[in-house]
Amino acid sequence: MNLKNVETKIAFDGEQRKYSHFSEALQCDMTFSIYLPTNNEKKEIPLIWWLSGLTCTDDNFSQKSGFQRLAEIHQVAVIIPDTSPRGEAVADDAAYDLGQGAGFYVDATEQPWSEHYKMYTYITEELAEIASTLVPRFSGKESIMGHSMGGHGALVIGMKNAQRFKAISAFSPILSPSQVPWGIKAFSTYLGKDKATWLEWDATELVKTTHAPPILISQGTQDSFYPEQLEETAFLKNAKENNQLVEYTKNAGYDHSYFFISTFLDDHFAFHMKNLK
Amino acid sequence: MNLKNVETKIAFDGEQRKYSHFSEALQCDMTFSIYLPTNNEKKEIPLIWWLSGLTCTDDNFSQKSGFQRLAEIHQVAVIIPDTSPRGEAVADDAAYDLGQGAGFYVDATEQPWSEHYKMYTYITEELAEIASTLVPRFSGKESIMGHSMGGHGALVIGMKNAQRFKAISAFSPILSPSQVPWGIKAFSTYLGKDKATWLEWDATELVKTTHAPPILISQGTQDSFYPEQLEETAFLKNAKENNQLVEYTKNAGYDHSYFFISTFLDDHFAFHMKNLK
Repeated sequence: MNLKNVETKIAFDGEQRKYSHFSEALQCDMTFSIYLPTNNEKKEIPLIWWLSGLTCTDDNFSQKSGFQRLAEIHQVAVIIPDTSPRGEAVADDAAYDLGQGAGFYVDATEQPWSEHYKMYTYITEELAEIASTLVPRFSGKESIMGHSMGGHGALVIGMKNAQRFKAISAFSPILSPSQVPWGIKAFSTYLGKDKATWLEWDATELVKTTHAPPILISQGTQDSFYPEQLEETAFLKNAKENNQLVEYTKNAGYDHSYFFISTFLDDHFAFHMKNLK
Repeated sequence: MNLKNVETKIAFDGEQRKYSHFSEALQCDMTFSIYLPTNNEKKEIPLIWWLSGLTCTDDNFSQKSGFQRLAEIHQVAVIIPDTSPRGEAVADDAAYDLGQGAGFYVDATEQPWSEHYKMYTYITEELAEIASTLVPRFSGKESIMGHSMGGHGALVIGMKNAQRFKAISAFSPILSPSQVPWGIKAFSTYLGKDKATWLEWDATELVKTTHAPPILISQGTQDSFYPEQLEETAFLKNAKENNQLVEYTKNAGYDHSYFFISTFLDDHFAFHMKNLK
């Protein structure tokens, strides 16, 4: 493993670290961030995954959410992957919602994307392996959260690995990617025209049959992408029919920004920690 | 007054607003941000000024510090000016530490800078007038804080208006601008070669004679600009000789970034609120 610690900053007494490495899964150089609370060598701590939205890198959540305060209070490590493979050799698109910065957390099957766009495998296998070496006394307990495209990613990864993750939460997630413009564009590009192949990457489909850990979802009422991209009706209906525990809250006045995330992150951390004990 | 509300976002239940206006003092269009906590129409609230560092706009503190959580808890309005006049017609320099983004909170006397670079007058008079109209039930009590160049600004503005501001605090401030590279470059450009004119803009000089409100200063030990740009010895010596109350803390491991600010902002807000009651 070719792991380079490119930066370590102290925040709320813990360490906000940035690493770069060559990813075998993605066949390119990648960067990610991880926060380790104080005392991380003295006691066992769990790990929360944060998946970011379209156009983001690992920096957005690190710099704008204020999560380090909560990670330190709750004594939990937090890992923040990038949102796609990167680099000049990696296929891209001029649009903000396709290509680099828009990996959608799937394993692409279509050319030219399938060469690098394997974010699902990268996160669930390769980066998970790396993370376990970086948290000195990892309790083995993990949960996953994300925003927008990353909310979709958290739900899909969490439900496809329902035994592994102890809690799933999302801010303003794309809940039905097969039905909304962002998802249709990405899935038809990365997965091809056969919509049957899309279903295993669609939270609204997965929630029909999975017995997943508890799910918490927060949505702002003034989100300019709601409901067009973030429609929840079918997801909630399917969850209910499958007796899947979902708490879905609509928050008056809030938009799609990090102001929304930072406001309700406290609730999300409390929810995760309850399930990570 | 030609004031335009260009954005309002909800954060921690309060309102994070952005305004643009034509500034008479600066002779250009300016943008600033202000946070109003909930209940701001029901009870009297004080106002904290935040002055940002080199290269910043009003967005850095708004998006990276997480201050809204504290402003809401303490029920205080916070106003965040830009760091210089702006626009194509405004004198500039290619360097990051001179010209636009680097106003140093002085009133320039040298051409071509004196035409627009009147940040001291802009903040203490014009923007103060505007702020008083935006806080519905302003208690009349103000305090001031800032970071780096903005820490210098907070100290100088606070001490030059010692009756008006109830508390002054700074993260990693330029304490002796007349003696360090950033300050010498800016002052010789904006104020001219006669160093006697620099003294009224130098906190280390002002603290010799002013009876200012309590001052709190936080400095990180791993700050790459410390001590070269941020040397504190002369300031602390002069403050002590003048019986000026200064609490100066060095914080192990912290650097010059917003990770440092966000970690200790809680302490700074508590300090300000104690003096704003």
